[in-house]
Amino acid sequence: MQLRDLGEFSLIARIERAAQREAHRASGRRGPGARGAVSLGIGDDAALLRVRSGEEVAVSVDALVEDVHFRFANESPRNIGRRAIVSGLSDLAAMGARPLGCVVGLAAPPSLDLGRFDGLAAGMLAEAQLHGAPICGGNLTRARETSLHVTVLGAVARGRAMTRAGTRVGDLVFVTGALGRSALARVRAEHLGARMRHVPQPRLEAGRRLARLPGLVACIDVSDGLRADLGHLLGPDLALELEPRRVPLGRGVAAGARRLGLDPLELACSGGEDYELLFTLRGRPPAAEALAKRLGLPVSCLGVVEAGSGAGGSESAGWRHF
Amino acid sequence: MQLRDLGEFSLIARIERAAQREAHRASGRRGPGARGAVSLGIGDDAALLRVRSGEEVAVSVDALVEDVHFRFANESPRNIGRRAIVSGLSDLAAMGARPLGCVVGLAAPPSLDLGRFDGLAAGMLAEAQLHGAPICGGNLTRARETSLHVTVLGAVARGRAMTRAGTRVGDLVFVTGALGRSALARVRAEHLGARMRHVPQPRLEAGRRLARLPGLVACIDVSDGLRADLGHLLGPDLALELEPRRVPLGRGVAAGARRLGLDPLELACSGGEDYELLFTLRGRPPAAEALAKRLGLPVSCLGVVEAGSGAGGSESAGWRHF
Repeated sequence: MQLRDLGEFSLIARIERAAQREAHRASGRRGPGARGAVSLGIGDDAALLRVRSGEEVAVSVDALVEDVHFRFANESPRNIGRRAIVSGLSDLAAMGARPLGCVVGLAAPPSLDLGRFDGLAAGMLAEAQLHGAPICGGNLTRARETSLHVTVLGAVARGRAMTRAGTRVGDLVFVTGALGRSALARVRAEHLGARMRHVPQPRLEAGRRLARLPGLVACIDVSDGLRADLGHLLGPDLALELEPRRVPLGRGVAAGARRLGLDPLELACSGGEDYELLFTLRGRPPAAEALAKRLGLPVSCLGVVEAGSGAGGSESAGWRHF
Repeated sequence: MQLRDLGEFSLIARIERAAQREAHRASGRRGPGARGAVSLGIGDDAALLRVRSGEEVAVSVDALVEDVHFRFANESPRNIGRRAIVSGLSDLAAMGARPLGCVVGLAAPPSLDLGRFDGLAAGMLAEAQLHGAPICGGNLTRARETSLHVTVLGAVARGRAMTRAGTRVGDLVFVTGALGRSALARVRAEHLGARMRHVPQPRLEAGRRLARLPGLVACIDVSDGLRADLGHLLGPDLALELEPRRVPLGRGVAAGARRLGLDPLELACSGGEDYELLFTLRGRPPAAEALAKRLGLPVSCLGVVEAGSGAGGSESAGWRHF
């Protein structure tokens, strides 16, 4: 069965029913309420989301495009859907925002298999609900290839959002968690035909705790790759010498990379889609262990910011689209 | 020059500069401030938008896809960009929300002409700024065809948003403005190769006034076509007999349709992209003239809601995607 065998409105109704099932499942779980901040969901001209007094709205859009960011041959539709949501929510984590909801622009050819469509929708709905950001609206359109355009909305106390700006010479650079697992999974899928199963997690709770940390200067999520995102954080006039022993490698990355004849460090520095938080602190920083305890995640210190140009530059490393 | 001749980051910087020029132009004009509700714009992990205490956030996403919703052969890139924004803002109008800002997911092939890219961006930036909803973020990705995925954000006093729900037998149905001009322009472009120049306007101010009107029951914008959107508003158990003399035809629609051998009424009822507001009132309605004065737009009464099935049904008329 293909999309063209149902109508646009039947497909939307299909997603609405799947969303209701997902909300029902969520209502039996601990964690954010099934509807979260959503006061009007799928099916009207716009969705409505509640914010608290004194909060600003954070909004970001990201996309996964067939044969650019994913291949149906390498990965289950459900996995693709989950990754699309994670990529968006990670931007909210980097701002220190709490998630409110998501809207999704889905484009697909009329020949798309209905099972794939259902899988994409199920993956997006489940991952969004899991993080308290239910999918509350969307748009469905015909196109030559399949793509998912996810807009995430969050809320953050006015003036308290973390931004990329403000880092100076002498600030310390930290990163949460470990790097390279998404890149390894991608290389293994492309070169060995291995199924992509790894879904990184958005560091939402750590981001909210980080935003309240004394001395916090700036934050970004590692989406393009450590080197490229460091370039975004430091700008053209600051630099950081990346010492290999300080870069935290994800589980299995060292061995996996060597089996493929690749440099694990290169994979960790330029791979991307890690969705860890990269941030700078000023003043007397807490010990890495104390910081880890505070954020609820392992934290590594990457070094001290210096004057000079670049950790490779923002354009020279990481993922280029054009 | 093509997109592939610049990098992703150069293209984003190009849009940022264009956005600054647009904001600068707007700051010299009357109307909403140049930055509006945007407290952090393009260039960070997320944008930040201010809402007032007691407001909810309205959000909606819409898309224009090359060769589905537009053709570069028929229309200037600037016109396409403007239409993409109007389509999104019209959803805010239908909720009675005031616009806060927009984020845009732009997908394009690396071979896209840079002039077209600039035109699309300029059209979107100008139209968004004009309505007090500056583009505050976006995403740029490679794809096989060009598409614009626009998410609009608005704010509305809690519990005051208009929805599509609630219409009953006996309610009166009204529509603002006039219908058919977009449909005529599209047919003329497709069949006669005439350039598409018509850009409908989102009824934002009328929507906000309508939301405060005593007796207002439900509202939707006419995007799929009068007959289809009436179907959305009335649902499966209500009907409205559309009397031809009551359907307001846009300027030039009657003559233009006849020149093409088409039925003007059919064009007005199933054409779509009119972006007028279609709404229901209960109780003693004001006279059409008083209503028009109150909303700042002409208003036509289409008739009384009856029990029964349909003004054509929601699936049988209007625009189908699959």
